[in-house]
Amino acid sequence: MANRKRGRQSFALAEPPVITHWASVAGKKESEGPLAHTFDIKSQDTYFGQKTWEQGEKQMQKLALTKLAEKARMNLESFNLVFSGDLLNQCIGSSFTLRNLGIPHLGLYGACSTMAESLLLAAMTVGGGFADNAVAMTSSHFASSERQYRFPLGYGGQRTPTAQWTVTGSGAALVQAEGKGPRITSCTVGTVTDLGIKDANNMGAAMAPAAYATIKAHFDDLKTAPEDYDLIVTGDLGQLGKEMLLELAKRDGVSLGGKLADCGTLIFDNTKQDVHAGGSGCGCSAITLCGYLLGQLNSGKLKRILFCGTGALLSPTSTQQGLPIPGICHAVCITGGN
Amino acid sequence: MANRKRGRQSFALAEPPVITHWASVAGKKESEGPLAHTFDIKSQDTYFGQKTWEQGEKQMQKLALTKLAEKARMNLESFNLVFSGDLLNQCIGSSFTLRNLGIPHLGLYGACSTMAESLLLAAMTVGGGFADNAVAMTSSHFASSERQYRFPLGYGGQRTPTAQWTVTGSGAALVQAEGKGPRITSCTVGTVTDLGIKDANNMGAAMAPAAYATIKAHFDDLKTAPEDYDLIVTGDLGQLGKEMLLELAKRDGVSLGGKLADCGTLIFDNTKQDVHAGGSGCGCSAITLCGYLLGQLNSGKLKRILFCGTGALLSPTSTQQGLPIPGICHAVCITGGN
Repeated sequence: MANRKRGRQSFALAEPPVITHWASVAGKKESEGPLAHTFDIKSQDTYFGQKTWEQGEKQMQKLALTKLAEKARMNLESFNLVFSGDLLNQCIGSSFTLRNLGIPHLGLYGACSTMAESLLLAAMTVGGGFADNAVAMTSSHFASSERQYRFPLGYGGQRTPTAQWTVTGSGAALVQAEGKGPRITSCTVGTVTDLGIKDANNMGAAMAPAAYATIKAHFDDLKTAPEDYDLIVTGDLGQLGKEMLLELAKRDGVSLGGKLADCGTLIFDNTKQDVHAGGSGCGCSAITLCGYLLGQLNSGKLKRILFCGTGALLSPTSTQQGLPIPGICHAVCITGGN
Repeated sequence: MANRKRGRQSFALAEPPVITHWASVAGKKESEGPLAHTFDIKSQDTYFGQKTWEQGEKQMQKLALTKLAEKARMNLESFNLVFSGDLLNQCIGSSFTLRNLGIPHLGLYGACSTMAESLLLAAMTVGGGFADNAVAMTSSHFASSERQYRFPLGYGGQRTPTAQWTVTGSGAALVQAEGKGPRITSCTVGTVTDLGIKDANNMGAAMAPAAYATIKAHFDDLKTAPEDYDLIVTGDLGQLGKEMLLELAKRDGVSLGGKLADCGTLIFDNTKQDVHAGGSGCGCSAITLCGYLLGQLNSGKLKRILFCGTGALLSPTSTQQGLPIPGICHAVCITGGN
């Protein structure tokens, strides 16, 4: 049986690649949240031993990659290919991580959808016979993001109620042709969707239409429905974006009701952690996947999920030039292990 | 026959996908250079009818994509997938191009190696059976790059002799499972290579070691040698980087001599156009490929080339923090048409 394009935006894997191992690194605030017990490495040091936040972010990815190799009992040199990207300008978190490690690297920019994008491409690479294994990896850092996208932290700017809190964390997953673990059975590539939202402090609203478009395309292309999944989990819509997605689906006659979760609302306890609308950033969906979700799939508590990485494709320049915020969402269907 | 991983960094396509169509858009200076006759669209307007250089860059990609569809006699909606990226922070050139066009999109960041990276991934997608066709696309713009990486243009900063001139241009190539045209037979994924160069005005030197590492890996993995190619063409090493690559190869006992060319030295006439060490940017290798090189391959004047996209993975932040410039290079082997 061959791999097959399915419908307009999707493809199915003839021999579903296996996510054999995964690793997660979390910052201080994330390590105080409800998913703390699922992370491999928890740090109290925002700099991760480095001199700058940007290099601290690089260090998180390095820790995630090293932990992944350790869990898989492999050398770093045994990784065939790393797909990675991050939010920093020119993705320096990812490229400096891989500096002189000798591992083939393809860099991505998918904003906060990068965990899903890298996983989708890793599945394609392994499923197509181009490599025996591939790593999907990403990161984000609260302090490097605030400095780059918003204000210097020392300025003490007031956060709006719709603002989200960028997760400090890095996740890495190893996709292999054979082995034990959750499997990637199909993927849906997103389209750039923009309904004109211009508020850079309300990313959830900017991304919700893209999320719904991709989830709908996935159902149409693969002939499935919400009831075929234990969980449909978006990356970082936050509380407001999640409500908007439910509303968009409802208007279209699709009930996501009991099935929908969002990594941005799972990762923090909003009653205690003061994160406003929830978590965000590449790291948000990355460590929720490479901690809690893959753990639940592996133990059989979840049997089939649709992991939907959501990204807001803005830059400070596009915002300053008065342009709206385009969103994107890529979906990966993962089934329970063994 | 199946696709196969070859050696450490490469893979061969069982049924080599075809580059059936290609399109190029060039700015004013590029349209006065020696490759002018090979470009589809030449503009005297640096803004391409837009209000800002960044939106001008977006417009170039849109023109390239539209021209590609026209040449292929396809609707934009018939494109299964677009792989694209650019140099602008958060790749807004690429994401704003695809805004609300309804075309599935996977965003890349490979700095100036993006044309090769996107072509490699398009070949993988089509060769693996995941899509019937895929577009590889990128762009760069002299004015948006100068503003972002260096100084405001109005400041009139003096350029160093080793500096290169960012090409204003966008190229797009359509990769299909069937049809007539040059074919992608194998690819080599690069590793992040850094020998400690810190001079952001000497990118050629920063990228040359990565270029040599990938070319060497390609020869080793595919059991080929320089004499098996009509041309080995790097993306944007410029005059100095090209000389350094020749020297690195020579020291290693490999003679690239008469086979090596660099898009950065092909695209401008340095005796008349005052571009110092040559052209650079994602657009440099993109329009040289999607104009001159694919034309020569299609007409049979070139029979087999190794197209090596070179990228410098720096950001202004990493430079300001005193870090060196890591380089990367991805290679795509393309054989003549029909």
